[in-house]
Amino acid sequence: MNGADALITTLADNGVTACFANPGTSEMQFVAALDREPRMRPVLCLFEGVATGAADGYARMTGKPACTLLHLGPGYANGAANLHNARRAFSPVVNIIGDHATYHRGFDAPLSSDIAALSAPNSVWVKSAETADSVGPLAAEAVTASQEAPGGVACLILPADSAWNETTVAGPVLAASPRRAPDLTEVEALAARLKAARKPVLLLGGAACGEDGLAAAARIAAAGVRVLTDTFVARMARGAGRFAPDRMHYFAEMALGDLEGVDLMVLVETTRPVAFFAYPDRPSVLVPEGCELVALGGRTADGPATLRALADAMGAPAEGTVQSLEQPVAPQGPLTPAAIGQTVARHLPAHAIVSDDAVTCGLPIFLATQTAAPHDWLMLTGGAIGQGIPLAIGAGVACPDRKVVALSGDGAAMFTVQGLWTIAREQLDVTVVVFANHAYRILDIEMYRTSGGPAGPAARGLLDLGAPRIDWMNLARSLGLPAARADTAQAFDEAFERAMARTGPAFIEAAL
Amino acid sequence: MNGADALITTLADNGVTACFANPGTSEMQFVAALDREPRMRPVLCLFEGVATGAADGYARMTGKPACTLLHLGPGYANGAANLHNARRAFSPVVNIIGDHATYHRGFDAPLSSDIAALSAPNSVWVKSAETADSVGPLAAEAVTASQEAPGGVACLILPADSAWNETTVAGPVLAASPRRAPDLTEVEALAARLKAARKPVLLLGGAACGEDGLAAAARIAAAGVRVLTDTFVARMARGAGRFAPDRMHYFAEMALGDLEGVDLMVLVETTRPVAFFAYPDRPSVLVPEGCELVALGGRTADGPATLRALADAMGAPAEGTVQSLEQPVAPQGPLTPAAIGQTVARHLPAHAIVSDDAVTCGLPIFLATQTAAPHDWLMLTGGAIGQGIPLAIGAGVACPDRKVVALSGDGAAMFTVQGLWTIAREQLDVTVVVFANHAYRILDIEMYRTSGGPAGPAARGLLDLGAPRIDWMNLARSLGLPAARADTAQAFDEAFERAMARTGPAFIEAAL
Repeated sequence: MNGADALITTLADNGVTACFANPGTSEMQFVAALDREPRMRPVLCLFEGVATGAADGYARMTGKPACTLLHLGPGYANGAANLHNARRAFSPVVNIIGDHATYHRGFDAPLSSDIAALSAPNSVWVKSAETADSVGPLAAEAVTASQEAPGGVACLILPADSAWNETTVAGPVLAASPRRAPDLTEVEALAARLKAARKPVLLLGGAACGEDGLAAAARIAAAGVRVLTDTFVARMARGAGRFAPDRMHYFAEMALGDLEGVDLMVLVETTRPVAFFAYPDRPSVLVPEGCELVALGGRTADGPATLRALADAMGAPAEGTVQSLEQPVAPQGPLTPAAIGQTVARHLPAHAIVSDDAVTCGLPIFLATQTAAPHDWLMLTGGAIGQGIPLAIGAGVACPDRKVVALSGDGAAMFTVQGLWTIAREQLDVTVVVFANHAYRILDIEMYRTSGGPAGPAARGLLDLGAPRIDWMNLARSLGLPAARADTAQAFDEAFERAMARTGPAFIEAAL
Repeated sequence: MNGADALITTLADNGVTACFANPGTSEMQFVAALDREPRMRPVLCLFEGVATGAADGYARMTGKPACTLLHLGPGYANGAANLHNARRAFSPVVNIIGDHATYHRGFDAPLSSDIAALSAPNSVWVKSAETADSVGPLAAEAVTASQEAPGGVACLILPADSAWNETTVAGPVLAASPRRAPDLTEVEALAARLKAARKPVLLLGGAACGEDGLAAAARIAAAGVRVLTDTFVARMARGAGRFAPDRMHYFAEMALGDLEGVDLMVLVETTRPVAFFAYPDRPSVLVPEGCELVALGGRTADGPATLRALADAMGAPAEGTVQSLEQPVAPQGPLTPAAIGQTVARHLPAHAIVSDDAVTCGLPIFLATQTAAPHDWLMLTGGAIGQGIPLAIGAGVACPDRKVVALSGDGAAMFTVQGLWTIAREQLDVTVVVFANHAYRILDIEMYRTSGGPAGPAARGLLDLGAPRIDWMNLARSLGLPAARADTAQAFDEAFERAMARTGPAFIEAAL
């Protein structure tokens, strides 16, 4: 076997069985070796940001890494924005970054760059396999590093000669260390403080927002503690049968208004909440004055176990209140985000996965689906828009028996529009909805908040996407997707119902 | 004025008058300030790789930087692949990278990242304006740094509070130091060695491939020295009335075969030629054994002046041989790269600009256009495909009175397909031709060269773009461009002739 064989075998032995790839010359050995390892599923992406976002989505749904295959420094760079999001989601991802042959590096050929330096800021682990014998062992190390709690991005740089040279060394099967179990003394003490507090809140992030974590959090809520989640979490269990915590507000003044009087904030799998952006004369930290902050276990804690222990220590009821199924009636009239929310809530099938990159259209749909059939909601953790379609690809590959719905702003969707082709190619059960309001609508709001004045013509020209208007339906069709356009609430409801009723790719332009 | 006003005024004072932008919240002050500085032309790009590639194209055509406006670390990262190409083209580019307010940075908000570390590998200069008073002076420094010979990428990080705070400090107008004049003693000595050499060659890069440089090189060729250019140069003057040097072969074995027996290689504005990639058992350096290498002045030299001095020192004729205009007849039969070359050579208008990201289709068209009307040819200097459309945008903004033709492979075009929208929005005089062969064709060749075997089904799945086939004509129409599809040589000839005859955007799918 050559180094590429050692790599793919080691990855598969360690449970990495999906590869989101955009290869080039230096990755040809890896590509050829795929035919010798049937456990690895290659998925071609026509832009690396699609590949890295898909790996993030895959990780969120499986808890284990997929790998990407990227072409030297520029290939990595194209994938870096969605790796920023993955870093903020604490998703395990293993990037295989092809490089020049070791002996070719010194010649500064056109594609040469400092890959280690480029990839360091978004990574928990970066190493280069300088020999074929080192490839397997480093691959095992990369997988483990990506899964080390709370999870992160590992980059294995693969020089072409390390891939094509022969080796007899495959990597070992390694186990990631488990998440930290709750410290019962600490939990007992905190339970007493929560009971003593005047207005305590519990703030959840990470896996604490999954089904098990929320079930335990519901018990704590039943014991009188208000429960919130971070504004953006990697994955949240929602809908009928699940506890519905509040969500931290996006804008600082709204968050602080909402939290007024809170004297104790307990953090589980998250850190002190802060504003997404700073604004002139607005606060950065979303913690009321005088409120005490207590981090229970930190990011590497086993959030669900910690919450269960806390509920027990508080003597909370065995079960908390969960949502019942309430599906709204069919919406009528003009197509608005609220109407779309009604439709999604009506037709979302049980166990669907929603990838939310909907920006200004997202919140009404999020709120409306609280009582929909049980589902998972994936959010934009790092603020780099262009994540919605790629995440949906990864979720679709990870969970072929679940319906995936990508909700994307039109501005956001353009960043990684190439992903539509991969959905068609892989015939994933993904429905993409693009909200065509033909503007960076969020920036209209932000312009007002940051500069205190209306935009002049030059400024408006940088916020408006309406000249020319993108024909989203035909754009999706040109990339191989069956597509519809809806410009009334009723038309959207019908199109979305059709997409939910069948299996396979679909695209809907929501013409707002 | 606030810091953003100081920035834009200083940029404009220093000759930076085009801004390729994809803004976000932290850049709203800059956006608002554009309405107070009419000298700056804002151009909205729906993906940052379009913005950075456009700035590169603008720089290649004007010799001066445009600025980009990018949204924190992820915005920079999305633009980094085309900045890699710009770095390899030695193009002056000034990136304005918005950041969180200085006091907000410590809170590690979702969009926080180490922007300086991310941007360092592709930059000659990176600084952050920590106060409003520092913005103007640093902006002037950034412009100068980008223009310091041989030219490069400067990044000015702009925290939101440095943009919104008031200041009275605008930056100075600075001059970049001139390129190095030839050392006449060195030139005289080299002229003697060239005359004494058995089989000397002159290898040109950078500005030595412009009109003046080639005119001087033609004289040296007339004195018996073979002249070549680098395989990829940022910009080359070509066609009728220009000297046509040879081009260094892409593959090492072909280059070395071509150079057999060469005993002296003189480098002007370039460095030792090396293979683009390493392959098993093939050489990395494109210099025959026993050949002496002499760098005349290095990358920072004034190449045209150096070549003139060398021609004079050799006693070369006052003028060399230039191409005469020879336009081929209309091609017939199936649509092939050779037929497309005939068409482009026939119809390319005088002073057109060609942006070449055509990968496997490029060489036949390059060769066919040697005798076309005079034009400039922009090449893929860094190997990161997805440059063709963005470069054309920058060239179109820089040279509104010249026809721009972007030639792009379909795989390459997908990386920055969002650029089609900007061409439509700005109504640029750009014709985009996409070669729809529905494959990463170059990788078929590379697979053979690197692994020595045919691709199996899994490998073929990563090289083939044919399932589904992208409908390029309708993709372009959906983004606002008038578009045609041609699947015969005659149909392509007619469509290209029509596009050349009118002014404004056009798109042709070359269905190969």
